[in-house]
Amino acid sequence: MEKFKVKFYPDNKAIEVKNDTTILSAAISCGVYINSVCGGDGVCGKCKVIVRNGTVITQPNGAISLEEKRQHIYLACLTTIHSDAEIEVLPESRLDFEKLSTQEFYTKSEEIEPAAPSLKEGVFAHSPLATKEYLELPPPSLEDNISDLERLYRQLGRLHKDYTATQMGLANIKQLGELLRDSDWKVTATLGKRNETTEIVLLESGNTSAKNFGMCFDIGTTTISGQLVDLKNKKVLGTKAVYNKQASFGSDVITRIIYANEEDGLEKLHNAVTDTMNEMIKELITEHKIDLNNVTCVLCTGNTTMVHLLLSVDPTFIRREPYVPTANFVPTIRAAEAGININPRGLLSCVPGVSSYVGGDTTSGILSCGLYKEEELGILIDIGTNGEIALGNKDFLVACAASAGPAFEGSGVTCGVRASRGAIQKVKISSGDFKVTYNTIGDAKPRGICGSGYIDLIAGMLSVGLIDKSGKLKAESSKRVRDSSENGREFVVAFKDETETGSDIVITEADIENLKRAKAAIYSATAILVKHMNLDFSAINKIFIAGGFGTSVDIDSAVKIGLLPNLERSKFVFIGNSALAGTRQMLLSYEATRKADEIARKITYFELSVDPGYMDEYMAALFFPHTDIKRWAM
Amino acid sequence: MEKFKVKFYPDNKAIEVKNDTTILSAAISCGVYINSVCGGDGVCGKCKVIVRNGTVITQPNGAISLEEKRQHIYLACLTTIHSDAEIEVLPESRLDFEKLSTQEFYTKSEEIEPAAPSLKEGVFAHSPLATKEYLELPPPSLEDNISDLERLYRQLGRLHKDYTATQMGLANIKQLGELLRDSDWKVTATLGKRNETTEIVLLESGNTSAKNFGMCFDIGTTTISGQLVDLKNKKVLGTKAVYNKQASFGSDVITRIIYANEEDGLEKLHNAVTDTMNEMIKELITEHKIDLNNVTCVLCTGNTTMVHLLLSVDPTFIRREPYVPTANFVPTIRAAEAGININPRGLLSCVPGVSSYVGGDTTSGILSCGLYKEEELGILIDIGTNGEIALGNKDFLVACAASAGPAFEGSGVTCGVRASRGAIQKVKISSGDFKVTYNTIGDAKPRGICGSGYIDLIAGMLSVGLIDKSGKLKAESSKRVRDSSENGREFVVAFKDETETGSDIVITEADIENLKRAKAAIYSATAILVKHMNLDFSAINKIFIAGGFGTSVDIDSAVKIGLLPNLERSKFVFIGNSALAGTRQMLLSYEATRKADEIARKITYFELSVDPGYMDEYMAALFFPHTDIKRWAM
Repeated sequence: MEKFKVKFYPDNKAIEVKNDTTILSAAISCGVYINSVCGGDGVCGKCKVIVRNGTVITQPNGAISLEEKRQHIYLACLTTIHSDAEIEVLPESRLDFEKLSTQEFYTKSEEIEPAAPSLKEGVFAHSPLATKEYLELPPPSLEDNISDLERLYRQLGRLHKDYTATQMGLANIKQLGELLRDSDWKVTATLGKRNETTEIVLLESGNTSAKNFGMCFDIGTTTISGQLVDLKNKKVLGTKAVYNKQASFGSDVITRIIYANEEDGLEKLHNAVTDTMNEMIKELITEHKIDLNNVTCVLCTGNTTMVHLLLSVDPTFIRREPYVPTANFVPTIRAAEAGININPRGLLSCVPGVSSYVGGDTTSGILSCGLYKEEELGILIDIGTNGEIALGNKDFLVACAASAGPAFEGSGVTCGVRASRGAIQKVKISSGDFKVTYNTIGDAKPRGICGSGYIDLIAGMLSVGLIDKSGKLKAESSKRVRDSSENGREFVVAFKDETETGSDIVITEADIENLKRAKAAIYSATAILVKHMNLDFSAINKIFIAGGFGTSVDIDSAVKIGLLPNLERSKFVFIGNSALAGTRQMLLSYEATRKADEIARKITYFELSVDPGYMDEYMAALFFPHTDIKRWAM
Repeated sequence: MEKFKVKFYPDNKAIEVKNDTTILSAAISCGVYINSVCGGDGVCGKCKVIVRNGTVITQPNGAISLEEKRQHIYLACLTTIHSDAEIEVLPESRLDFEKLSTQEFYTKSEEIEPAAPSLKEGVFAHSPLATKEYLELPPPSLEDNISDLERLYRQLGRLHKDYTATQMGLANIKQLGELLRDSDWKVTATLGKRNETTEIVLLESGNTSAKNFGMCFDIGTTTISGQLVDLKNKKVLGTKAVYNKQASFGSDVITRIIYANEEDGLEKLHNAVTDTMNEMIKELITEHKIDLNNVTCVLCTGNTTMVHLLLSVDPTFIRREPYVPTANFVPTIRAAEAGININPRGLLSCVPGVSSYVGGDTTSGILSCGLYKEEELGILIDIGTNGEIALGNKDFLVACAASAGPAFEGSGVTCGVRASRGAIQKVKISSGDFKVTYNTIGDAKPRGICGSGYIDLIAGMLSVGLIDKSGKLKAESSKRVRDSSENGREFVVAFKDETETGSDIVITEADIENLKRAKAAIYSATAILVKHMNLDFSAINKIFIAGGFGTSVDIDSAVKIGLLPNLERSKFVFIGNSALAGTRQMLLSYEATRKADEIARKITYFELSVDPGYMDEYMAALFFPHTDIKRWAM
């Protein structure tokens, strides 16, 4: 079989592939992650590359302009390799760590702290997933000659009555005799919670108890957020939010599940998510000058498919009726077993999920916003690619899922970016001259538009009459509205002379359609869930809104476009990434972990698709704000 | 560095070694185990080999006769390799599996069943270390859509209330979804006890619950005994007793501990014991046509050093004051972690020990003979290379260790053999003509003498005046008494025309000395322990005698030589390998396992060497029966 050598820039990674391999597949195989919203179907036009050298064969596609053709730009998914080749991934096609994670983003940990009054940290007792205990053991004597291991257990038992069911693995026992004597019987034990028992995960010489760090992750379909936490003093040292490298395999969970069934598909998806997480960990510990060995545990939340892929568990049955995952409650394992690089004996735990489409992220969100303990009724809306809505109070909890797509996370829309430095997050449009004023995160030159920016933008365009209720742009309204050969009809938000990228920042009719479908999915799911419980929105006391669309969403705008129902503004609470906040609580408190288990068991899953009214409700929501405009009257 | 190729026969194993490597060391490195009682010091003369080809350099040694020199026979420990070589290990030097394990030995399981009335099996509830449960799960539906893992747990919980803290490892979870569906939701779960929790060790398609087997082992310094047990119906399917291949590294635990500190020493000792055990397992499952994957668990007992070496835990500190082992209670692990070949996910557990020199074999012996629950006082004497004596009743237990050496196990004595087919087990000597009558195990031609034979033999020689109280052979007494150039003064038990081997079977003065030291160590330890508790032998109601010296020891003979005190014969109970019997009880019953934990924690260890009277008592016991002959009057 003929093989060709393909080199990718700027990664400088090379691989040998068979004749007729697609560029996308070659890239994935050598760990170069190219954005591919559609999962390689040639539809999204996101996976652009320049072929510097080599023979390739491509299929005609509208996403490539004549100018791009002249520059040897191709879609990676539609182009196959027929000689040795050198390929450059265009900056906008890269699922690039550096590009997306910014130090400015979320540096103040308050920004992602849960904002709801009930979720102040400290509610749960401080007892992290892994703790370090410094121990000074009495050396053995002829009179006190119990074995080394029992000596260790005895000392732990003296310090903590609840350390009775303590275990230690063989690897540590093998080193025990020498370590204790070399350390003059002064050691630090790292104690990890493993389900019902306490495990001595590590033993170190001397007192290292000040150095104990953990990571919490929210593994979203599009975005992975992670925090490095000092487990001793509960401080968040740093936060990263980056695109999930699995985006190379398609933008939604269904595409990923299908890909997992291809040859080596599960392994590739697994590697993509662990690569993303490992890079985040490496960057965070480097920034904070922390030794990897002092990162002793990882706690992950995410939708059910993401957790399956993290653990290399086949997600096939999630999408086959009756939609049953392999596991909602997964055991705590060694992080190394899942390919996560922390201390080689460190632990990895996952927040329990509820069903195939309501995952641990809902559990941790509910923990974080306190829905589970309120007297009055509340709703949690977590807006993500896989949106989740929970309704309830201290007496009951019910949840459903809505496939919203990645638009609010800045993916799958022409100039969408994550809510990071340079993202347009707030927009005003003057009536009459349609002048656009905006502000960006970090007050930097604009790079694109994030979720909250899009919400403002569409609300503004509606207010000034640039678009109609169906989202169609009015042609003659402004010089900012134009017909582009590449994008169709579009509205220019920022002209290229004001932007960071040197290109115009636009919103297209297709983008508006995309965002409309996303908001319709979220709103209609919420409305059906409320109706399913024989309730009305007026019965709801609080609506907690979580998600990665920006640090501050304008409620009026969100109501105006019909993402949210028109209720008293004081009922809305934006809580940022509540899934991550809840996961951090669990990382820091075993009590919170047990509470999350309780929550996950308590939630009743409601399958939207079996509700006869759902499709009608969704179709009615495909307008700004809705066909049933009466609902938006106050 | 020059390397030479050395090939060993009859194993047909080859290895490359550096110039000047000893033959013994080369043999060990390629898994050829040569008997070496002294551990390579050139003292025991057991490691004889024929050098067929090649240049070797040896040191003069009295153990090699002129005739042997002519036949190119060398001591493997004192001979170094200086060219490519071909070496044949002499039959008598081989620690050979085939030679020692015999189907005749212990085929009737009653023979090794505990004989004490209190130890009938069935006292403890039947709940093996690993059980198989056949489960028919209700398939999931839209109404009953809990995850696969929870479905499994739920079904187990319905069957057994005590399976609440159930766990399953990631490896099994990965296969779960497909397995359940391929099996039409009918599976068999192998449930293992792992300390406080129950683990789903294995999941198999369909109903395999009838095929569940376990192994129990008593890992002695000289001998390893093992049984294959049908865990479902509690039947012992087969028993093997073979020499521990670690004998290549010396005959007692101290030599082994020293060797463990040499380069790769611990690994080599570990491999020797696991090789021995794996061969036993393989033979047993082959004989009984059992699939290795259906062997789901292994339970091991042994002295503390043996358990450390089995687990590759450095035993160094066992022999350094204050004589502290690394662990007495070791966690249940996967057998594969210790290099034991059963089902790859099968479990291995070790019986808890008490101290550096009183190990799990004492715990399981006490469990088996019921000492721990008797109203009246009893003693358990386990006669092995590392002898152990326990004294107590339901209120207290105290134990000590006596280093007796391997003589009673047929090792380290000229014509010693294990108690297997062809071993002389009973001996009578007529006074006057000193005619010897004997019987052998299996009524076969004699191969050598086992422990019970030696006890009878010495008692007989004493009775007829062939030896005096110090064990010296009277020269002119018989044609059977002669001076041999090789062995010094010896007594012929069986002439070569009657033996299996075609050589005379003899007992030498050195052998008698060896056996005398062994019996003195056991007796004096027992006497000191009784005295230490301010007791007298008359206060003892039962003496349980355990060990591998044969299936039936003549009590009168044992009393006559001073191995046992002169008490009413009805007080003595021979219980065979009680350590193995107790371990089998634990393999079959978790209740017995918990009882053993309790026993191990209850036993007080008594360090003989700190007793000021011990040395005197030992010296006084170096006579047949003793210097204080009054004690033997009835």
